[in-house]
Amino acid sequence: MSQSHVLIAGTWRPADASGTFSAHDPRTGEALPGEYPTSRWSDCDAALDAAQAAAVELRTVEPAKIAAFLEGYAARIEARADEISELASKETALPVAPRLAAVELPRTTGQLRQAAEAARNEHWTRPIIDTAANIRTRFGPIGPVAVFGPNNFPLAFGSISGGDFAAAIAAGNPVIAKGHPLHPGTTQILAQEAQKAVEEAGLPAATVQLLYNLDFADGERLVKDPRLAAIAFTGSRRGGLALKAHADAAGKPIYLELGSVNPVVILPKALEERGAALAEEFTGSCLMGTGQFCTNPGLVIVQESPAAQAFVADVTKRFAAAQPGVLFSKSGLEGLGESVDGLKSAGAKVLAGGKPAADASGFSYENTVLEATGAQFLEAPEKLQSEAFGNATLIVRTSSTDETKSVIRSLEGNLTGCVYSATDGSDDASYDAIAPELRARVGRLINDKMPTGVAVSPAMNHGGPFPATSHPGFTAVGLPGSISRFAMLQCYDNVRPHRLPASLRDENPGGVWRNVDGNWSHGAL
Amino acid sequence: MSQSHVLIAGTWRPADASGTFSAHDPRTGEALPGEYPTSRWSDCDAALDAAQAAAVELRTVEPAKIAAFLEGYAARIEARADEISELASKETALPVAPRLAAVELPRTTGQLRQAAEAARNEHWTRPIIDTAANIRTRFGPIGPVAVFGPNNFPLAFGSISGGDFAAAIAAGNPVIAKGHPLHPGTTQILAQEAQKAVEEAGLPAATVQLLYNLDFADGERLVKDPRLAAIAFTGSRRGGLALKAHADAAGKPIYLELGSVNPVVILPKALEERGAALAEEFTGSCLMGTGQFCTNPGLVIVQESPAAQAFVADVTKRFAAAQPGVLFSKSGLEGLGESVDGLKSAGAKVLAGGKPAADASGFSYENTVLEATGAQFLEAPEKLQSEAFGNATLIVRTSSTDETKSVIRSLEGNLTGCVYSATDGSDDASYDAIAPELRARVGRLINDKMPTGVAVSPAMNHGGPFPATSHPGFTAVGLPGSISRFAMLQCYDNVRPHRLPASLRDENPGGVWRNVDGNWSHGAL
Repeated sequence: MSQSHVLIAGTWRPADASGTFSAHDPRTGEALPGEYPTSRWSDCDAALDAAQAAAVELRTVEPAKIAAFLEGYAARIEARADEISELASKETALPVAPRLAAVELPRTTGQLRQAAEAARNEHWTRPIIDTAANIRTRFGPIGPVAVFGPNNFPLAFGSISGGDFAAAIAAGNPVIAKGHPLHPGTTQILAQEAQKAVEEAGLPAATVQLLYNLDFADGERLVKDPRLAAIAFTGSRRGGLALKAHADAAGKPIYLELGSVNPVVILPKALEERGAALAEEFTGSCLMGTGQFCTNPGLVIVQESPAAQAFVADVTKRFAAAQPGVLFSKSGLEGLGESVDGLKSAGAKVLAGGKPAADASGFSYENTVLEATGAQFLEAPEKLQSEAFGNATLIVRTSSTDETKSVIRSLEGNLTGCVYSATDGSDDASYDAIAPELRARVGRLINDKMPTGVAVSPAMNHGGPFPATSHPGFTAVGLPGSISRFAMLQCYDNVRPHRLPASLRDENPGGVWRNVDGNWSHGAL
Repeated sequence: MSQSHVLIAGTWRPADASGTFSAHDPRTGEALPGEYPTSRWSDCDAALDAAQAAAVELRTVEPAKIAAFLEGYAARIEARADEISELASKETALPVAPRLAAVELPRTTGQLRQAAEAARNEHWTRPIIDTAANIRTRFGPIGPVAVFGPNNFPLAFGSISGGDFAAAIAAGNPVIAKGHPLHPGTTQILAQEAQKAVEEAGLPAATVQLLYNLDFADGERLVKDPRLAAIAFTGSRRGGLALKAHADAAGKPIYLELGSVNPVVILPKALEERGAALAEEFTGSCLMGTGQFCTNPGLVIVQESPAAQAFVADVTKRFAAAQPGVLFSKSGLEGLGESVDGLKSAGAKVLAGGKPAADASGFSYENTVLEATGAQFLEAPEKLQSEAFGNATLIVRTSSTDETKSVIRSLEGNLTGCVYSATDGSDDASYDAIAPELRARVGRLINDKMPTGVAVSPAMNHGGPFPATSHPGFTAVGLPGSISRFAMLQCYDNVRPHRLPASLRDENPGGVWRNVDGNWSHGAL
């Protein structure tokens, strides 16, 4: 089997490879066909040169062409939907249906089309005009962006197809995609279609480039290279923080999305009111996708009561009864085991699971429930809020609303925080006591709903305070908001009218929403 | 003379001081009356505790109260305007009139009032509502902010009175001000008025706190402390980058404003058309405030021609003829000398000045013009674009538009970039060749105007790519935009209506501009 080529400057060419790797079927642990290169620095160097040139060209490309690329790419993904879903399923053990074919792939093409619309209407540039001073400002493209995709969404967060990719492109930036080594075949098909769509749309050839894999040192060298303007990374805390240190030192924006434990607080009266339904809802959310979501509910906080005991018993029973899913990789299986052991050593007690699934041939861990008291949590908050990525959760039983509040105050930044309360308002005093504390620590505050669904909405915030992400002012999901991560503020002071970008001219030919002297409008001046 | 007290938790109290310092009159080098403490860590620790508690309280304070504080404070500054301007002039050698009394002080109170208006109308929160999904997002306060003020604007960029302070407060964050040691007396008066205005407005006592000085280690410890949410720093590159390394490692936003050389390109036909007027305009801009502006034009690029020669000769004559101003400090004088020496050692030739002013008793350096060819610049771009903070500038004479373009491509990020072109359009081809390159490297692109004026306008961008600032997506001047640096994105997903912030409720009682399903409006749903 010949080694797969990398995509650099519009051409599929042999990598300058330091080694090769293959994907594995997580259901069996067996290697899948296909051999992919780990690139040496010279591949990065060539991609950076090409990206830098493409960024200059892209500055003068009509937004409509960028939109055409994104739409053409979406259509091309749909044309190979079966093939993509099947290969992605082989590489990740995620089910073809409904997850890949009916949920993640349509989400992916939907995001690309929303990004196309954003590129075309340019509302993301948020023009601000001071007519008296004749100062006009808008967001413009930042320059070449490197996207490091995660293991858990090969399509919707994929390095060459996901939300970061779509947002960076919509702003007019070239992307260097660093694929995830667990699903190289899926990434390759997507890159093939992206490259063809780039050609059809007439964009610079290096608008989209793909390297399958890099060693750590080259990844760090890539993020700090002056030819690169910004970085998006979705994945593990260790990997993300290593890249961040290098990007920070070079003074460039890096947007990390590192996951979190996503605390779910179930208030006492809600447990009394609908404990059994909540146990079912929670179990479904926590075990979905074998728990391998950034927004997986890994920490549940309940206040001690008979209803809480019944809830814990019910969840434990459900976790024990459910068939454990398959994890993405051997290292994921080992990592989950280590995380559960870490929780145990910090005092948590295993109620269900707690070890690799015995009768599984692939990468599988028993559905795991642990519990700790609020007092235990407050003694070791750092260890007990460590994320266990997969089908495991920790239930914390507190002795009072005050203790619940203290537990929340001991939390780091999280993507989400949920509160379930009684429908009759009888939990409202407790809600008012804890919600402000939770609010300050999460990007998305949710009522009466599990965190796992992340709607692609302009109002979504898939972000949050460190260490859930690297900056609490940005979202990774939701257009056009997510585009602003890959934009720079560009002010035009006294610039002659014919030299202004169209959206800053008096005429506003594209009907872009603009803030003119403090008010929003989309007409001409 | 007794040592001045620090302001912690609403109380003026003796510092836990590791030492003391005094301000000096830059005109004479003599120490001014007054002794100020350098605080030990225990002062920071107390301020952080108080700020953390104040941040929690501020979350439930009505925006109108914050606005009342800002307006009350502005009025109080005006009531002591003469005293403030006179002391600031003694400490900085900036003239009372017009600079301090007629320009900087009104700018300062104007900014505070604009911040009050922003706090009151809440447009800065930029609500986004998806009615179908019932997801609602807005920006909210980030938490305690430390503001490190610079030496060069004791009022308008001052740690306890300037743009960063006003923006952080407007968002509902407490501020820990770290004063600049060159003007402690001015800072003290401002803090006195701020504290009284906080009391009058009924805000938490620790909304505003002041430490005059910290040693480097405590400054670094302060920025990485988990009780602090964000940092604003205006000042030297060395100091800013040292703080940034610690803030970055702790995962928190730090906004640096480090100044830059602010390239001014004068195109050939503009030189022919109005060379003498441009020499006068440039000299005025460059020597104003003894060149101690972040937006001082420290690099001029002209294309070789008889008109360019005449321009250089004219500027040289004007610099030599003008009385050198007074610099802020002995270290500023030494720093300017070192910077000029650095430019010389990189090949620049001194046309005027180049040494400390001989007959001055205070901190004064001759008005300095250096020149280099484009080829020289391209051989040592890093050294030749080093900022010489003060009344010095480097003129680069290029051989062609292409070389001008290459010089621009070798520039780091800058706050501003100016292009002067002929009024008859005869420079337009050159403009089109260079402007895109300049655009990508500066926060504010200017036509036919010097960069020194920074209007306080919603459309201003006082920002730019690294190393001019630490993030190209934010501005330090201009409301409400500058507030977003001190804000976090807060999403409410399925949150019950009565629990939403007012601006996210259907009713929108405050008439806040909101993006609802893609369109901006300020009414109810």
